[in-house]
Amino acid sequence: MNSNNNILIAQGGGPTAVINQTLVGIIKAEKNLKSSIYGALNGVNGIINNNFLLLNKISEDELSLLANTPGSALGSTRDKPDRKYCVEIYNILKKKEISKFYYIGGNDSSDSLKIISNFAIEKNYNLQCIHVPKTIDNDLVLNDHTPGFGSAAKYVAQLFSGINYDVKSLPGVYIGIVMGRHAGFLTASSSLLRKKKEDGPHLIFIPEFTLSLDKFIENVNKIYKRYGRCIIAASEGIKNKKNRLYTEMIKDSIEYDDHGNIQLSGSGTLGDFLADKVKKKLNISRVRADTLGYSQRSFLGSASELDQSEAFDIGFGAVQFSIKNSKSFSIGIKERKVYEKDYTFNLVINSLDHIAGKTKVMPRNFYNYKEFDVSKKFTKYCLPLIGKNIPPTTSIF
Amino acid sequence: MNSNNNILIAQGGGPTAVINQTLVGIIKAEKNLKSSIYGALNGVNGIINNNFLLLNKISEDELSLLANTPGSALGSTRDKPDRKYCVEIYNILKKKEISKFYYIGGNDSSDSLKIISNFAIEKNYNLQCIHVPKTIDNDLVLNDHTPGFGSAAKYVAQLFSGINYDVKSLPGVYIGIVMGRHAGFLTASSSLLRKKKEDGPHLIFIPEFTLSLDKFIENVNKIYKRYGRCIIAASEGIKNKKNRLYTEMIKDSIEYDDHGNIQLSGSGTLGDFLADKVKKKLNISRVRADTLGYSQRSFLGSASELDQSEAFDIGFGAVQFSIKNSKSFSIGIKERKVYEKDYTFNLVINSLDHIAGKTKVMPRNFYNYKEFDVSKKFTKYCLPLIGKNIPPTTSIF
Repeated sequence: MNSNNNILIAQGGGPTAVINQTLVGIIKAEKNLKSSIYGALNGVNGIINNNFLLLNKISEDELSLLANTPGSALGSTRDKPDRKYCVEIYNILKKKEISKFYYIGGNDSSDSLKIISNFAIEKNYNLQCIHVPKTIDNDLVLNDHTPGFGSAAKYVAQLFSGINYDVKSLPGVYIGIVMGRHAGFLTASSSLLRKKKEDGPHLIFIPEFTLSLDKFIENVNKIYKRYGRCIIAASEGIKNKKNRLYTEMIKDSIEYDDHGNIQLSGSGTLGDFLADKVKKKLNISRVRADTLGYSQRSFLGSASELDQSEAFDIGFGAVQFSIKNSKSFSIGIKERKVYEKDYTFNLVINSLDHIAGKTKVMPRNFYNYKEFDVSKKFTKYCLPLIGKNIPPTTSIF
Repeated sequence: MNSNNNILIAQGGGPTAVINQTLVGIIKAEKNLKSSIYGALNGVNGIINNNFLLLNKISEDELSLLANTPGSALGSTRDKPDRKYCVEIYNILKKKEISKFYYIGGNDSSDSLKIISNFAIEKNYNLQCIHVPKTIDNDLVLNDHTPGFGSAAKYVAQLFSGINYDVKSLPGVYIGIVMGRHAGFLTASSSLLRKKKEDGPHLIFIPEFTLSLDKFIENVNKIYKRYGRCIIAASEGIKNKKNRLYTEMIKDSIEYDDHGNIQLSGSGTLGDFLADKVKKKLNISRVRADTLGYSQRSFLGSASELDQSEAFDIGFGAVQFSIKNSKSFSIGIKERKVYEKDYTFNLVINSLDHIAGKTKVMPRNFYNYKEFDVSKKFTKYCLPLIGKNIPPTTSIF
């Protein structure tokens, strides 16, 4: 340990609805240790640009408000530092006599920390680099789940529950495109509030299993014939049988065309493409596609209360572990092997080496690839994470 | 009055998050009158197809769940009956000895009721046709606002509040396309949870004021230079200087092209088009567009508690008015001329003639067309309607 108590916090990657709970958890615990608490603005970018805030002075009331505010209160960055960038970070941290650097982020953030931490060891400088996870994608290895995911999953589940009743009112085909390039957890969460067998989403397509357009159309047709409606949740990262992203295929087919002045490059592309295929191949008139967008990670007012408290606790807990364990680490939520009704929260620490740059995807037993639906195991795993503050619903016909 | 107490309820048009509150309000009040309460499935369509449910037997517990369920519990329809269709409805109502027909819907529904009611008068049959309003567009004349709007406005306001913090974390240009073909109320609601001068949405574009692409780009540029980010809320019904819908223009330009096999017809079109213009004309790399989609009217779990109670009360009140006043009518919420802090709810009845087929748009003094922003008057009018169960937020830089 350095004799001083200068500590630094930064937030990286996509924000979540609860990332500030983690920030506040760290601030509160470090305040107890009488540390000087610095925040770098816009992640690692703020470090190399010398953009710091002293966080000690934020009042308790303001901290409570902050914890409930979506987005990264310190700003974020998409910078993925290379070794040179990391050395620059190290030099500034050393100059500011920082003894602990908490980086709240996904696996990219843990990768940066690994490089910085190793460099500090080489230089024989006592710097603890602490990765505190967040990601709505839930794709961090060695973690049961990650803070941010539960709230995003709750939002997606509530949205699809509403859509279920909406499409029941005015039947047709509905396609909802959900965030998730590699991992299908968030898309799978669309299923969590179904009450009856005929409730949607009826088809769930995730990046982990390739999908031909023919299979897609065949299954939409089957469900539409059965229920007179079909609700689909598809990950933005779905791939065709050749393992190519649908979004890439669509973009290419436009770019090869090279006529006209409208470029298909916004977020509505995939949904519109699939809706168009359904209209043309199945001759169904009412086909709608929504792309769920950034509200999945930032919507105000529907955070999971469990996710909120875990996000706080993982920040607070990271500080406590940093006293017991003077090395760099990644804090995490212990993996469950058995999904009991009463979920209990257990913090663990992992080596940065084991987290950095790795991506977790949906386990095979979470998905029924014949039915294009989640398995019961997925529901058992995921349902506790969205919390209990969700109005119950019903239908009368 | 007919000696019997057979009454009929139906729901028409787009569902809302609270349309079933109104349904339950009517059922509870009619139960007090010992009526036989029928529900037609899928609006007027269920009447001519003889698709009825007896609603008396639904338990009190089930009614409570139903009230909180989004979507139209009886199903809905987009059918807009002509005179012949209305005569058919009349004949079936007469055969079933219906004395009161409650139609929960927008101004199309009131139009159908007007025709049916007039026909019953011609035939000297005592039929009370009662229009009970709902619409997220808030576009009903002679009504201060309409049930369904407050919850949709709350959803849009919460979504843009989250987006404000999200885009502050990772700066760029964000375009959110909000429902509303003719009236800008819902798009304007995106402003309601701003806390600071620099909070977004920074630009609000509504159907009531035409917008040239040049003005759009010029203003995005101005805001982006000022704050380093720009958040835009645009109605799906925005029009160019020639009063043509942007969505129509975009579709045409694709249809004229007539190459390629991708048709731009989904809901992402307008947002993607505007995002593309910003990227190309202003050379800003991070430009994102979301089209808010059906969750605006059906999201589960963020209904305004005021909207919920008003939606119930307007249903319950319609039944009470139907006793005092034996003619057909449209029930409504009395217009406020002065927007006090403490909003009070007053029911009124209007003639179907005065409601049917008319559309209310944003009053001129609700919008500052030089700044492309709402006025203080709009905020005073609208803020009470979204209720108070919204987490407060803050920012620290």
